[in-house]
Amino acid sequence: YKINRCKKKKKKNKKIKGSKDMTITKTIYMYFLYIPTYMLPTFDAWQWEPNEMLSCLEHMYHDLGLVKDFNMNPITLKRWLLCIHDNYRNNPFHNFRHCFCVTQMMYSMICLCNLQEKLPQVDILILMTAAVCHDLDHPGYNNTYQINARTELAVRYNDLSPLENHHCAVAFQIFSQPDCNIFSKFDPEAFKQIRQGTITLILATDMARHGEILDSFKQKVDGFDYADEEHVTCLKMVLIKCCDISNEVRPMEVAEPWVDCLLEEYFMQSDREKSEGLPVAPFMDREKVTKPTAQIGFIKFVLIPMFETVMKLFPQIEEAMVQPLRESRDRYEELKQIDDAMNEVQVLQMIQSAEEEEREPDDWREEEVSV
Amino acid sequence: YKINRCKKKKKKNKKIKGSKDMTITKTIYMYFLYIPTYMLPTFDAWQWEPNEMLSCLEHMYHDLGLVKDFNMNPITLKRWLLCIHDNYRNNPFHNFRHCFCVTQMMYSMICLCNLQEKLPQVDILILMTAAVCHDLDHPGYNNTYQINARTELAVRYNDLSPLENHHCAVAFQIFSQPDCNIFSKFDPEAFKQIRQGTITLILATDMARHGEILDSFKQKVDGFDYADEEHVTCLKMVLIKCCDISNEVRPMEVAEPWVDCLLEEYFMQSDREKSEGLPVAPFMDREKVTKPTAQIGFIKFVLIPMFETVMKLFPQIEEAMVQPLRESRDRYEELKQIDDAMNEVQVLQMIQSAEEEEREPDDWREEEVSV
Repeated sequence: YKINRCKKKKKKNKKIKGSKDMTITKTIYMYFLYIPTYMLPTFDAWQWEPNEMLSCLEHMYHDLGLVKDFNMNPITLKRWLLCIHDNYRNNPFHNFRHCFCVTQMMYSMICLCNLQEKLPQVDILILMTAAVCHDLDHPGYNNTYQINARTELAVRYNDLSPLENHHCAVAFQIFSQPDCNIFSKFDPEAFKQIRQGTITLILATDMARHGEILDSFKQKVDGFDYADEEHVTCLKMVLIKCCDISNEVRPMEVAEPWVDCLLEEYFMQSDREKSEGLPVAPFMDREKVTKPTAQIGFIKFVLIPMFETVMKLFPQIEEAMVQPLRESRDRYEELKQIDDAMNEVQVLQMIQSAEEEEREPDDWREEEVSV
Repeated sequence: YKINRCKKKKKKNKKIKGSKDMTITKTIYMYFLYIPTYMLPTFDAWQWEPNEMLSCLEHMYHDLGLVKDFNMNPITLKRWLLCIHDNYRNNPFHNFRHCFCVTQMMYSMICLCNLQEKLPQVDILILMTAAVCHDLDHPGYNNTYQINARTELAVRYNDLSPLENHHCAVAFQIFSQPDCNIFSKFDPEAFKQIRQGTITLILATDMARHGEILDSFKQKVDGFDYADEEHVTCLKMVLIKCCDISNEVRPMEVAEPWVDCLLEEYFMQSDREKSEGLPVAPFMDREKVTKPTAQIGFIKFVLIPMFETVMKLFPQIEEAMVQPLRESRDRYEELKQIDDAMNEVQVLQMIQSAEEEEREPDDWREEEVSV
């Protein structure tokens, strides 16, 4: 994999330094100063252009004190974020805006849960950086497709989290470029720690490991010990998992378009699987899935149980995150009831017209006989 | 990574079909018919040319019934083995001859432990194939070097068993070429099983996982259940681990040159680490290691405990494998005593000459004073 860089990057870099973009940046900064919605899970990412999202991410690194505490070159930070942007693909769902949303939710959780009082700065840096990098160069087809289609990625990674391994490898290919290495001033030991931590978090986003990771966290949460490295690592894994699938935490107007994007990506995959003779997952099949059916199970059996477990450690997320999830579940259950009622009507209509059709052929047969 | 193929392969393929090689093959076959030493752990691999080792591997696949039972094209088997040969590098230790030795030891253990009566043929196929592929394209520098030097392989595999993941990926890149795919007649489910099994075994050869894998096997061995898939997988992992590091099981004349090869590869690495300012492991440092010191600890704390655990399941390996290990340990301990005695003499000589030198400066000082 050749990472996107050089020409494209420099061009965009200039753009962000240009007067037009500085105005936008100023607007955002004003926004930040007076209405810090970017700190809240309610933030609406749909309103922003890539350059604005980049400025916002940049601001978060400054605001959390990461630039100062880790002696980062602010220009390198800008270049790194641009390079990140250029290495997300234009998929319906797994694109740079998704990266932004996940990172913005991480930032919100860091603020909401006062994580800076509980964790060392290096863990804050790992949480933010893993969020930024967690889906780099996502091809828009999931691990199951990679494995069943025996793609280059699946062969390279021996069917073991091929996508997550790739996202992570691309992240560190980018850091290996000196002009994008925000860790350049770290000594080898500190770099090792950041690298190890970031790898662990990105690999934790493979949903195939959801049960394993959540179970491990459940065993720790009641006697949670911030001095225990294993406990903290597990918490960080759960936090990035929460942020990665946190769209339904957001207001309905923000969350719902993401479902359309996800289904678009799923249908693209299932269509391809059908044409290639590969197995198709029912939840990706356009013949079998609707928005409510897609979301209800996911919210009830994946999202709420995970966020309620995290709530044991951070009760403040109940109002800001768990309550919206419950409301979203209720809304989709209502929508499903409407869908079901509509289907019932349709079925009744189909039976009716079938009965009518059944009568017609009788007449024809009679005609045939008469001919 | 581009696998070696096409021209080079075809050329070699012709060679093996040529009259000269047919003669060699005939010799080997005669050898096989009357003195089946290739079934024994005492087999001396140093006597054979690559083409002869290839014929021998081919013979093993036929002899175990793998070609017949899995409906392999015998020509594809030949081409696959040639391609395997071409994708091992000429390292001092991790080369095609090591691949051959590990596979030959696997074959010996299959025979000695009557594994064909205990395991389904698909497991025999997985054991043999994983042994053949287990070090493909080994670069001659270990995982620690890869990680510390931040090589392409370490970045690609996020520091997680980079070499073993690479060996395995190369193996399946080779199978993805139709002319080398000995599994071409398998249905997708059967291929999946072989692939999963082979991956698990190759990844188990990472010595960083030695303790974890052996502990897991120890927990199963007393109530070992051939009907339990987890038990069988764990046994297969331990078997390939045994074969991978089995040189010291062989007669001293066969085993000892391998220590020289390994130290040559180690010293190549530690010299490079020194020149690149990377940390150097003491067991690789030419200033700190000798043949006896290198081997004694490894035989006592790694090899004997592992083979003695396997012995609980297959008592017949005591005479053929564990006894030679004990003898080798005793021999190296004797050699170490000789080394130590020699060192003591050297140290005494050094002290003596130092004392002599010490007297001289006194004379000089007197001279100085007199001047």
